Amino acid sequence: MRLFQFERSGDVGVGVFIGDGKFIDVKRCDANLPNNLKELISLSNWRACLNDAAHKGPVELISTVNFLPPILNPNAVWALALNFKTHIDETGLQTSPHYPHVFMRHMGSLVGHQQSLIAPPETIGRAFDYEGELCVIVGKGGRHIPVEKALNHVAGFTCCNEGSVREFQAHNRQFGLGKNFEKSGSIGPYLVTPDEISDYKNCEIITRLNGVVRQQSKLSDMLFSVEKVINYLSKGYELRVGDIIMMGTPGALPPSSEDDIGADLSKQFGRIKVRGLVHMRPGDLCEVEISSIGVLSNPIVADEDEAYRVVESDICKAE
Amino acid sequence: MRLFQFERSGDVGVGVFIGDGKFIDVKRCDANLPNNLKELISLSNWRACLNDAAHKGPVELISTVNFLPPILNPNAVWALALNFKTHIDETGLQTSPHYPHVFMRHMGSLVGHQQSLIAPPETIGRAFDYEGELCVIVGKGGRHIPVEKALNHVAGFTCCNEGSVREFQAHNRQFGLGKNFEKSGSIGPYLVTPDEISDYKNCEIITRLNGVVRQQSKLSDMLFSVEKVINYLSKGYELRVGDIIMMGTPGALPPSSEDDIGADLSKQFGRIKVRGLVHMRPGDLCEVEISSIGVLSNPIVADEDEAYRVVESDICKAE
Repeated sequence: MRLFQFERSGDVGVGVFIGDGKFIDVKRCDANLPNNLKELISLSNWRACLNDAAHKGPVELISTVNFLPPILNPNAVWALALNFKTHIDETGLQTSPHYPHVFMRHMGSLVGHQQSLIAPPETIGRAFDYEGELCVIVGKGGRHIPVEKALNHVAGFTCCNEGSVREFQAHNRQFGLGKNFEKSGSIGPYLVTPDEISDYKNCEIITRLNGVVRQQSKLSDMLFSVEKVINYLSKGYELRVGDIIMMGTPGALPPSSEDDIGADLSKQFGRIKVRGLVHMRPGDLCEVEISSIGVLSNPIVADEDEAYRVVESDICKAE
Repeated sequence: MRLFQFERSGDVGVGVFIGDGKFIDVKRCDANLPNNLKELISLSNWRACLNDAAHKGPVELISTVNFLPPILNPNAVWALALNFKTHIDETGLQTSPHYPHVFMRHMGSLVGHQQSLIAPPETIGRAFDYEGELCVIVGKGGRHIPVEKALNHVAGFTCCNEGSVREFQAHNRQFGLGKNFEKSGSIGPYLVTPDEISDYKNCEIITRLNGVVRQQSKLSDMLFSVEKVINYLSKGYELRVGDIIMMGTPGALPPSSEDDIGADLSKQFGRIKVRGLVHMRPGDLCEVEISSIGVLSNPIVADEDEAYRVVESDICKAE
């Protein structure tokens, strides 16, 4: 099953993708089902509910709704640093071979499929980088989850672009704000249930900037598997339904002989220069594709200028 | 004003402390006011509303309700590492003199006043440490907030115990899980509005374990002030009503001549041994007191044993 959270005329809803650009709005099939995907997958019988719902219709066009992040309000967004050898090599950074390298993001740093990523003003940061990653959505809570039971706790997989502002990431030892700029990353489009994929490790991840492949890797190249990361986190943290785990990004593909921009290190502003890396700029389109899982696509737009502004509260939108 | 979020018979509410162990339940004065403190302080006229409400009564005893964290559902919990010279010196760790050292926590890692902090099983971690800190609650959203306007964005101050599991904190370069164990920290009791305090920098912070003072510092000793941290975060992040900022912890007080336990480094299990530091253990009571702001008090209890358990979803409670 491929599920997504959408917005239409100010209301949110959960959709079941049925192929060919079409979907079923869960709420229009069964008014008793929640309009929030996290709440939906917390029902013990959600798969059966959705199978029923998906046969009742009505069938609608996906083009009539806007994608949102599949989960709007997780308790936690965990993310992994340095989980591919190619990325460790290109950064020259150290990481433990024994423990996953873990940090956190907040949901305000993430948009959904087709929503705009925001590039900081150039006065703030210019090294605004994509990081294509596999993303895990937790479907069942637990503590001290053994590696061999870990996949039972996964509701599904999706794609993410764990966008980062390198200048801020380098301000200190903790990544902090550099991994948490407003709308600097994205997640989606679909929560894809594990039965749609034979083995996630066989999937391939590709990141394209303006159509050029910039990252490409098998997910079997991850240092710490999904199972090991779930096992590790659950030693201290109670995994909850809807939690998000971003599995880390592979290194850059070396530039081809015609790829002037990918070969030009003088166009890079981060502390660590990498051949084949190209920062995201306003006007660009960035795509993260994972085979059998989907394509997450986001245009890049410029943030407003660096000027003081008070932002009035909008609690209803924030919840 | 001193405001708090409470639970009573399964319902949540907002209280206004009126002294002498008594409070006003906002909802019982005006049924139109929200029962959630974050929503309440997002109303532009909340101070006037509460002033009205507080004169209507009825007056109730605080002993009849349970404290919760003052904010239940912030968009972000920001925390600062290494923001007091005494703590930098005792750890020997490096930090930038130019930028605050920032990381994040999730709300599941925090309990309210008088709720139990959970010590990990000894098989998981034994270096479970208090960190007494000033905590800022954001009252007005904004971007690119100048230092001189920053305090206008503060709804109030409270205390926190930014409890940490040192073994996990040392697993890798990012603190990750070590700062985010389940119910390892606390926040509260009251959101104290700035008009109750002449200048937060003149406040003194004290952490006591079982009645013995273990940390003691003026808040003027912070490397980065509240104003500078708000300015920094708002360069990349849109501050939102209800956001929490934990301002970092001072170093340990050297043990007195009779303080055998504080002087005994062989009882410490972290990578960094510090004279005067004593880990939190089940049966202990830890208090963080900030003058003019309050006393946050938490008993320590043992976590369940390290055994696999599935945790059924409880969405209503989690929201």
